[in-house]
Amino acid sequence: MAGTSDVERDAMRRALELAARPGAPLHPNPRVGCVLLRPDGSTLAEGHHRGAGTPHAEVDALARAGAEARGATAVVTLEPCDHTGRTGPCSQALVAAGVRRVVLAQRDPNPLATGGVETLRAAGIEVEAGLMAAEATALNRVWTFAVEHGRPFVTWKLATTLDGRSAAADGTSRWISGTASRRDTHRLRALADTMLVGTGTVAVDDPLLTVRDADDRPLPRQPLRVVMGRRDLDPAARVLAPVAGGDDTPTLHLRTRDPHEALAELAARERRHVFLEGGPTLAAAFLAAGLVDEVVAYVAPFLLGAGRSAVADLGITTISGAWRPEVLDVAVLDPVVDGEQPDVRFTLAPPAPTPPARGDA
Amino acid sequence: MAGTSDVERDAMRRALELAARPGAPLHPNPRVGCVLLRPDGSTLAEGHHRGAGTPHAEVDALARAGAEARGATAVVTLEPCDHTGRTGPCSQALVAAGVRRVVLAQRDPNPLATGGVETLRAAGIEVEAGLMAAEATALNRVWTFAVEHGRPFVTWKLATTLDGRSAAADGTSRWISGTASRRDTHRLRALADTMLVGTGTVAVDDPLLTVRDADDRPLPRQPLRVVMGRRDLDPAARVLAPVAGGDDTPTLHLRTRDPHEALAELAARERRHVFLEGGPTLAAAFLAAGLVDEVVAYVAPFLLGAGRSAVADLGITTISGAWRPEVLDVAVLDPVVDGEQPDVRFTLAPPAPTPPARGDA
Repeated sequence: MAGTSDVERDAMRRALELAARPGAPLHPNPRVGCVLLRPDGSTLAEGHHRGAGTPHAEVDALARAGAEARGATAVVTLEPCDHTGRTGPCSQALVAAGVRRVVLAQRDPNPLATGGVETLRAAGIEVEAGLMAAEATALNRVWTFAVEHGRPFVTWKLATTLDGRSAAADGTSRWISGTASRRDTHRLRALADTMLVGTGTVAVDDPLLTVRDADDRPLPRQPLRVVMGRRDLDPAARVLAPVAGGDDTPTLHLRTRDPHEALAELAARERRHVFLEGGPTLAAAFLAAGLVDEVVAYVAPFLLGAGRSAVADLGITTISGAWRPEVLDVAVLDPVVDGEQPDVRFTLAPPAPTPPARGDA
Repeated sequence: MAGTSDVERDAMRRALELAARPGAPLHPNPRVGCVLLRPDGSTLAEGHHRGAGTPHAEVDALARAGAEARGATAVVTLEPCDHTGRTGPCSQALVAAGVRRVVLAQRDPNPLATGGVETLRAAGIEVEAGLMAAEATALNRVWTFAVEHGRPFVTWKLATTLDGRSAAADGTSRWISGTASRRDTHRLRALADTMLVGTGTVAVDDPLLTVRDADDRPLPRQPLRVVMGRRDLDPAARVLAPVAGGDDTPTLHLRTRDPHEALAELAARERRHVFLEGGPTLAAAFLAAGLVDEVVAYVAPFLLGAGRSAVADLGITTISGAWRPEVLDVAVLDPVVDGEQPDVRFTLAPPAPTPPARGDA
């Protein structure tokens, strides 16, 4: 970034802070921050995006700046959008305000939104792209993935005993994990916008699929609850009941067994992050389809010796064919309740696709 | 220990150091150290035990002290033995040397060896027992257990995938664990005096059951290799071949399927510490018989989805009946070879026996 100044770098750091402010929803929109600088380098205005249907960060900052925006530099964490969605295009807003220069971090990965840089340049605005792009991309890791891939990012959560069981022989599974792991699960559920299980899990475990706090109270913002599979749901299933204090969005039943189809449906509904807590069969289907993007596995240090396996058959017959993910993190979750034992949480990324053999055309 | 002085405490600390000197074999005898103090509190002589057939620590120290032992205080980490084994009783040796006072840490848990304190007192020697007893007992943790229980301490080692598999569907299992875990296993094998598997494991995996260094060379001192089960062994099985550089002790085949019987046989051969690396069936038999005293479980962060379970049926049908050990330690074993992923090692103690319900007579 030879073309950017220390003042602009400091402003970008500040814009990243603004973007990450607590309260900005994670989904479906990216988190974006913007700082407007006067020609002398002093800060003219700050803005950030507060969620779908509210002004984008640039527009938020421009509104605060008023007429002084003319001749200013806009420092923004994401390429200004060039299309009309719920709000008008930010590129046009910057042009109209008379901004002289734009410094941006991440290029927009959305094929619908891209073109902002070109529009700005065509209007005679100086543009520098890529300043602190890695930090900006990390801030919207899941959104970036979802936009690039045209489908939600899938986190598969599993809870297993040391011998790989997710339930005892009689089907009982409360609780495989300790209290610390269960609280950790709710923390992670809250980061997603969609909970997904299969009809089998609803039939066997009758889960609520809500996000609850340490006192088991539902949080005010709840992910969409989705059940997939062809079987009818018991109308009395707890997953169908409205969440006390929730937003009343009805639970979605996708009558398909195909993970690709289910994710396409969810993508069409602007879902960015699916938290998959299905049983072994559903998990195996997603794994086999290459549609698991992250695994969070809680291993509880006890033995059952029998009962439901945590993962169904993956078609793997020999050790060299194992599904070998990359370990991103291993954490020991110390008990928060007397008498419990520590669980271990593995956070895993799927294996990179095997590159084609050399010599292949 | 109102009856002991600071000088005696310092001498006991030194005696514990002497006992733990590298090179003293762990089995079948305990590690013992002894310091002889002159009446003015200065050190007269030190001694420690160097393994079965060599002088006990007290006799070692007395030999160095010579005639000066008369009137001395002996500070020793274990109650002096009172029986004639491979060597004469230490209590008699202390009496004969004219020692005036004995300060000891751990009481002898061996019903054959106990009585040392009584013999010393009957000869008019002052005796203080229990100084730093916890430290001394910890030093010979496995030996103490074996002597108290009349059978070897059993460490069960298992290596499993995240989904509880110890082999793939076709039986392949090289390698479930990474290099760091395998090296760690050899370190632990070297602490035991006996390796134990079932005939099934020999038939399927054809293991060497030797202790090897990081370059895969056998160590000079090898545990006894034991195979249990009624099936005949293939005469070409690798476990039957002498260990290059080993001590030529032949592998033992115990033609029983009963863990109690096998351990009684091994106890009769003065075996103190069995390292159990059997398959799921043998492990389940030891668990069900309550004959696992420690579990070392390596969990490798990958999935097989099918294949041999790490543990066979334990007769557990419901979650509340799970075998829930106490977690002594959880360690992440970082890879020592490029491209490998970290394994996690759990060290577990078996659950305490359920106390009788209140009100039971």
